[in-house]
Amino acid sequence: MAEANLQILLKSRPEGRPGPEHFELVQSPIPEPRHGEVLVRHRFLSLDPYMRGRMSDAVSYAPPVPLGGVMEGECVGEVVQSQHPNFAPGDWVSGARGWQGWSAAHGSTLVKLPAGSGVSPSAYLGVLGMPGRTAWIGVTEVLRPKPGETFVVAAASGAVGAVAGQVARRMGARVVGIAGGAEKCRYVTEELGFDACLDHREGLEAALDAACPNGIDCYFENVGGSVQKSVFPRMREFGRIAFCGMVAEYNQSPPPPGPNLMALVRKRLTLQGFLVNDHPRAGQEWMRNGAVLLREGKLQFREDVAQGLENAPAAFVGLLEGRNFGKLVVAI
Amino acid sequence: MAEANLQILLKSRPEGRPGPEHFELVQSPIPEPRHGEVLVRHRFLSLDPYMRGRMSDAVSYAPPVPLGGVMEGECVGEVVQSQHPNFAPGDWVSGARGWQGWSAAHGSTLVKLPAGSGVSPSAYLGVLGMPGRTAWIGVTEVLRPKPGETFVVAAASGAVGAVAGQVARRMGARVVGIAGGAEKCRYVTEELGFDACLDHREGLEAALDAACPNGIDCYFENVGGSVQKSVFPRMREFGRIAFCGMVAEYNQSPPPPGPNLMALVRKRLTLQGFLVNDHPRAGQEWMRNGAVLLREGKLQFREDVAQGLENAPAAFVGLLEGRNFGKLVVAI
Repeated sequence: MAEANLQILLKSRPEGRPGPEHFELVQSPIPEPRHGEVLVRHRFLSLDPYMRGRMSDAVSYAPPVPLGGVMEGECVGEVVQSQHPNFAPGDWVSGARGWQGWSAAHGSTLVKLPAGSGVSPSAYLGVLGMPGRTAWIGVTEVLRPKPGETFVVAAASGAVGAVAGQVARRMGARVVGIAGGAEKCRYVTEELGFDACLDHREGLEAALDAACPNGIDCYFENVGGSVQKSVFPRMREFGRIAFCGMVAEYNQSPPPPGPNLMALVRKRLTLQGFLVNDHPRAGQEWMRNGAVLLREGKLQFREDVAQGLENAPAAFVGLLEGRNFGKLVVAI
Repeated sequence: MAEANLQILLKSRPEGRPGPEHFELVQSPIPEPRHGEVLVRHRFLSLDPYMRGRMSDAVSYAPPVPLGGVMEGECVGEVVQSQHPNFAPGDWVSGARGWQGWSAAHGSTLVKLPAGSGVSPSAYLGVLGMPGRTAWIGVTEVLRPKPGETFVVAAASGAVGAVAGQVARRMGARVVGIAGGAEKCRYVTEELGFDACLDHREGLEAALDAACPNGIDCYFENVGGSVQKSVFPRMREFGRIAFCGMVAEYNQSPPPPGPNLMALVRKRLTLQGFLVNDHPRAGQEWMRNGAVLLREGKLQFREDVAQGLENAPAAFVGLLEGRNFGKLVVAI
């Protein structure tokens, strides 16, 4: 083939904010699929906050990307050649194939996307992908909101927050989003149907007092930082906080201290961190239930599409600063 | 009756460490029981860290003791007169009767102690009382240790920690206590049978690394402060922390910050605060099961008995500083 495989490698490990200097673009030959493998032409790459953790060599739940290695990430793409009986050219697949244009993957590492579902393949990186599953697990397995409860979710227009709030609302909770700026807040209430959305740039503490006069029963935490500081003291007795990430602090080193934990006793709070891959059964549930909601028009989502793999590093840096609006993907 | 009722009132609210100046001793007439009431001569008063919270008017799970009011606390005592059909003179009872020598209590607020059980009445303030129930709930309802797990408990020679560790060990966990000083540590391993006990005054971090080489699965938190700082980073994946109090910080104002919470995600930790009164069913369980263990010699406990109600304030101040050794009660 005439084309080369554009790849983005991790060049050096950032302290604080990553920049273009931490990435390297290279061109490699397009790989040949061996027995059992499938050659995939990637069409969309997902950009997600967790990737910041993979750039560091601090001990974490997953090993870091090695220096000089291809950045990790989920992709959807089309099968071009197949040496695996379950896949044929033209099939759409998803898999953790990295920041690159092509890959040869063993068939067992790929998931075939349903044909003719009417859903854009990129949705399998967002609303029906890892972020959607994360939201579903955090709401239905960890927080378990009950009708009448007040449910607050940060980064409410983002890939995870938008699904979390919509699912919580469907479970009967009063859902208050938090987002950055009036335009995102308008989208969250008008398009996603949240009961309220507060701009964290504009006096969040007073806004929370007004929007949650009886306190907060459930908080879906995915940002940390000043939003966490404002929400934590407003938790109500028997409140729950689900932690799936704290993107506002990923560029801070060392990480800032957290709240004094005596409030856990006084208010009988439960704080629980979770990772999507620890809950495969619930993840499957979302693939089924989310698809139903989407088909019935009961689930809204928005994508922010960056054009061209070469722009992935800049888009990723923007993601860590909240500059995206909706699920961030790269069209390759 | 010739005797008067010695009472200890809250005179003023401490900022930081309480002292004798925050209490007032007064003598009042011994009350007359009215219809439905029982006159109780208190024999033992329980002193517990939560009482520090009742001295402050900060918002908490229970209202503060009013200025000039009798300090709150659990007592066991003997019935002297009864206007209630369920009680007769000579019965032993327990109830939240306050820091005083006598009280007239409605029968519905008292619990009759089992006669002829061979257990000292004061045990119903400790091992079979609120501290014992707290330990049982934290272990069996919140932490739920599994065989082979490493279970760490702070204030291990204290009223709550001693029971928590013994119950966890009976559930198959490897139990590591933390206590202040070599004498307490020796008691915890030799008398209570913990697998290890670490002196928090002597290089706790290195000692934890040595005693818990694979990390900590369950932490029963009742002290906070520097012990929490040492334990938290050593929690293992899927670890749980149960919070029933943070006595080392009760005299600090404002409370110090806590740990950064991103570790909750990385390690999928669960942190849960609880209060004994929210779990009445499990509390009943302990009254039954704890009595069995005690009768069979499978549960050790130790009391630190202060003599005379007038010495309660000084004993209580010592409790907040870890100067007691075992469950602190006052013999009246």
